[in-house]
Amino acid sequence: MSAHSGAKIGGEFALIRQFFHQKTQHQAQVDLSVGDDAALFRVAHGQQCVVSTDLLVSGRHFFADAAPRLLGHKALAVNLSDLAAMGAQPLAFTLSIALPSVDEAWLADFSAGMFALAQTHQCDLIGGDTTRSEQLVIGITIFGQLPRGAAILRSGAQVGDDVWVSGTLGGAAYALDLLQNGVAHVPELLRQRLEAPTPRVALGLALRDIATAMLDVSDGLAGDLMHVLRASNLAATIECDDLPMPLELQELPQLEAWRYAVTGGDDYELCFTAPATQRAALTALSVAQGVALTRIGLTTAGAPNITWRSQSNPAHLAQMSDWTGYNHF
Amino acid sequence: MSAHSGAKIGGEFALIRQFFHQKTQHQAQVDLSVGDDAALFRVAHGQQCVVSTDLLVSGRHFFADAAPRLLGHKALAVNLSDLAAMGAQPLAFTLSIALPSVDEAWLADFSAGMFALAQTHQCDLIGGDTTRSEQLVIGITIFGQLPRGAAILRSGAQVGDDVWVSGTLGGAAYALDLLQNGVAHVPELLRQRLEAPTPRVALGLALRDIATAMLDVSDGLAGDLMHVLRASNLAATIECDDLPMPLELQELPQLEAWRYAVTGGDDYELCFTAPATQRAALTALSVAQGVALTRIGLTTAGAPNITWRSQSNPAHLAQMSDWTGYNHF
Repeated sequence: MSAHSGAKIGGEFALIRQFFHQKTQHQAQVDLSVGDDAALFRVAHGQQCVVSTDLLVSGRHFFADAAPRLLGHKALAVNLSDLAAMGAQPLAFTLSIALPSVDEAWLADFSAGMFALAQTHQCDLIGGDTTRSEQLVIGITIFGQLPRGAAILRSGAQVGDDVWVSGTLGGAAYALDLLQNGVAHVPELLRQRLEAPTPRVALGLALRDIATAMLDVSDGLAGDLMHVLRASNLAATIECDDLPMPLELQELPQLEAWRYAVTGGDDYELCFTAPATQRAALTALSVAQGVALTRIGLTTAGAPNITWRSQSNPAHLAQMSDWTGYNHF
Repeated sequence: MSAHSGAKIGGEFALIRQFFHQKTQHQAQVDLSVGDDAALFRVAHGQQCVVSTDLLVSGRHFFADAAPRLLGHKALAVNLSDLAAMGAQPLAFTLSIALPSVDEAWLADFSAGMFALAQTHQCDLIGGDTTRSEQLVIGITIFGQLPRGAAILRSGAQVGDDVWVSGTLGGAAYALDLLQNGVAHVPELLRQRLEAPTPRVALGLALRDIATAMLDVSDGLAGDLMHVLRASNLAATIECDDLPMPLELQELPQLEAWRYAVTGGDDYELCFTAPATQRAALTALSVAQGVALTRIGLTTAGAPNITWRSQSNPAHLAQMSDWTGYNHF
């Protein structure tokens, strides 16, 4: 595709590639990595290949001056989170990157952040594409595997299942608001919720035999849970008093805190349904993995809809009815 | 990733998605398509998964006012071409698209062009991402399969192999030059070389048991053949008089025509090596598929390098020594 790319720019292309040269290959199933027309990998017999893709645009999905190490982490994290939400084991990914200029320090930090997370999850970079653009654009496609039929889909929730979420909700959106409002000292742990989310890969794997439906909370609980309810053709009742929130949110006025927890995107926690018989197993799993798992409600028969409930502040509930997730576009 | 996406924009996102809703699924191996956190497909037992990815940026890889139907075709074609260059069977692809605005007519034409080619190759759209950006950016990741060990790599050329190319070379680059210079009536067939390239998928499959090394000519013969020679640690001698060119190029001064044929990108023809014992088989294959296959030279022992030869215009050869492919960046 490069006849349109205009003038040759010497060794810059090779320079960029050197930052994305992965030193160690983790997956024996990867047969051919970067360097040919395509990469080759094997999926174990009886397993399905799981694929997800995300496109991140500067100024829309991240600040143009975002710390490159964190950005490298996050770009891969959001894709790993999609695999986690299926209950899949990560295998490999491709990276496409369009850059306005070649900044060696930026590339070194970005790739370091990305490869550190890739190594944690034994996920190999097996291909990519690099080009110039006015805006920084990062495209990652990720591949995982799971036994055929083991994927935890959005459509599997049953009437009377508990609704659970991992970790805390709303922190990423609150951190974003503080940063956008020029608050100088955003608490570090809160900032990490936005800038360095932890994909719940091990949790997703462990939930394969427990959860009936699952997704990751990227657009806000309200909108994302509605995806599960529509796919499963169920309603849900959610107890607002039980929503797990970071400490900083708990100090806000109740309604404001709930708004972040219910509509805030970018948390990358798992939201899933499971029968009540799994409560003990989930408590044990939470302890074993060191990840909070909170039961926030119940699915019910009925047209897809969320009923918000609260003992502490029932007067707030009327204002929550039209809260939905942010729109991607 | 949408907390950063700012205000909600009603149903535009849903609107875009409707254009990328594939009506017919072609591949029984696709178990889950668009609509969950990830897609699921199976790779047949004993087969490898083949993956390639390309990122196309407006103004760099295509004109901002490019006809959307042709652009949809080309965005998928360049990815299919990568699979063809491995000898792989297409299976599925993901599409990420960042748009400056929502233009229904544009989306309808773009998706029509893309789906028409997808149907030709029974290649299913199984996932994607849509967002806003200042520049139009199109990212496709494509998946195929082939029997384990059957991939035609760049590294397999042997000393004394013939060097072959399919179709013609240089037409796309010539068409681009004419268009950029404001020439009003670029011949239709020449324009198609640039705007609607034909990925050589069936040819790639048929070459599995014939070719020793292969790639697709996307950056110009000189640069691309050098990739094969470096990977195979061989030199090559190329007969310029034998370079297959479109009629329009044959009318140009010889050196200018050769420059297009040797350095012009975007042709998406296959360049491959094969032992001389395969000449009859390749002639038969050319007839059977209705695709020209031209023997243009020979690999030789030696450090990776191309020696250009000509009976008709040996005086031109000195000027060709530093012709290489365009640089992507």
